[in-house]
Amino acid sequence: MGKVIADISVSLDGFVAGPDPTQEEPLGKGGEGLHEWIVATKGWREAHGYEGGTTGPDSDMADRARANVGAVVMGRGMFGPSEGGAWGDEPWEGWWGDDPPFHVPVYVLTHHEREPLEKVGGTTFHFVTDGIGSALEQARAAAGDAEVLVAGGGNVIQQCISAGAVDELQLHIVPVFLGGGARLLYDLPAGSFEPIEVIGSPAVTHVRYRLKSA
Amino acid sequence: MGKVIADISVSLDGFVAGPDPTQEEPLGKGGEGLHEWIVATKGWREAHGYEGGTTGPDSDMADRARANVGAVVMGRGMFGPSEGGAWGDEPWEGWWGDDPPFHVPVYVLTHHEREPLEKVGGTTFHFVTDGIGSALEQARAAAGDAEVLVAGGGNVIQQCISAGAVDELQLHIVPVFLGGGARLLYDLPAGSFEPIEVIGSPAVTHVRYRLKSA
Repeated sequence: MGKVIADISVSLDGFVAGPDPTQEEPLGKGGEGLHEWIVATKGWREAHGYEGGTTGPDSDMADRARANVGAVVMGRGMFGPSEGGAWGDEPWEGWWGDDPPFHVPVYVLTHHEREPLEKVGGTTFHFVTDGIGSALEQARAAAGDAEVLVAGGGNVIQQCISAGAVDELQLHIVPVFLGGGARLLYDLPAGSFEPIEVIGSPAVTHVRYRLKSA
Repeated sequence: MGKVIADISVSLDGFVAGPDPTQEEPLGKGGEGLHEWIVATKGWREAHGYEGGTTGPDSDMADRARANVGAVVMGRGMFGPSEGGAWGDEPWEGWWGDDPPFHVPVYVLTHHEREPLEKVGGTTFHFVTDGIGSALEQARAAAGDAEVLVAGGGNVIQQCISAGAVDELQLHIVPVFLGGGARLLYDLPAGSFEPIEVIGSPAVTHVRYRLKSA
């Protein structure tokens, strides 16, 4: 069975989104700054249909995050905005456009039942209403020997870690401080992880932690 | 003039000490775990008069933290416990024994006036009651072209960063999560630092940030 890998950018003061999120700023004040490093990379830009971008360790990291992924788990807020776009008569298509960058089944945690949403390029969004355990189970079955990527948001990663379901946590420690917002690792019993890889760039520090032995 | 370098260990969830500090556990619950990496090194052990210890990047880091230091600034809690040992008739000698590992002047921020305390090996503790600006000024004058090390605790480093006085921040990101305690970087305006060096070991990730251009 493939590993379950959680992957998220975190500020130097421990936040995965800034304070006061709105429809215009769904990542909160300053939260976009957590993702500037990846948006600048050739790896991310190619996957999202843009030209240009930087090469080097950050781009390699963006490539690697998708390289062996057989299924994705994400929260409702990462699929689409929580305001605007009804779930009922006119289902919301989400943030990701017609050809999302995943190319694998994506399991979206939500309280709203909905039929699967098939996009081009191999991405189908499945809406899971019976909790994180079920989402992980379905994702593992779909991924087979490939990895399951828990892509965020922070609360979904938190739930997966709390459930003991994450094999590795790939943090991108961004040298910004947001002063508030959504915390990662806020409600876990005291414990420790094992850093197994450290890669730095002038923009961000990538640290991979092993959470449980394989 | 030498650089001002702040150096501190921080948990993965952003704490520089654990919750509920007591006289027995001055670093709070789990807080000792932040320093296990350095106590295990040959560099730290030699400086503190112990034998043995590990070599490698963590020990190099422990050595380097002292290599070019001409003066140290620290908070009252790092000099000695805040309970037990009076400041009056029977001045408290602090945590550091007869031969402290600093071998340079140490400026201790406190509200209690007191004569300098001279130890063997070149360490003299000076007690500064007129604030962080004064402590830094005295330390810079004593250090000359050597570095000023701001050694902690977190609130002293915070004050120095807020005052714009820190050139570089050397963080040791320890893969423990404490769930509460004393935060680093809790009351700064949003902003960013520039990572200039990343060194990893199986125990801890050392990231050096530039806070202002030299």
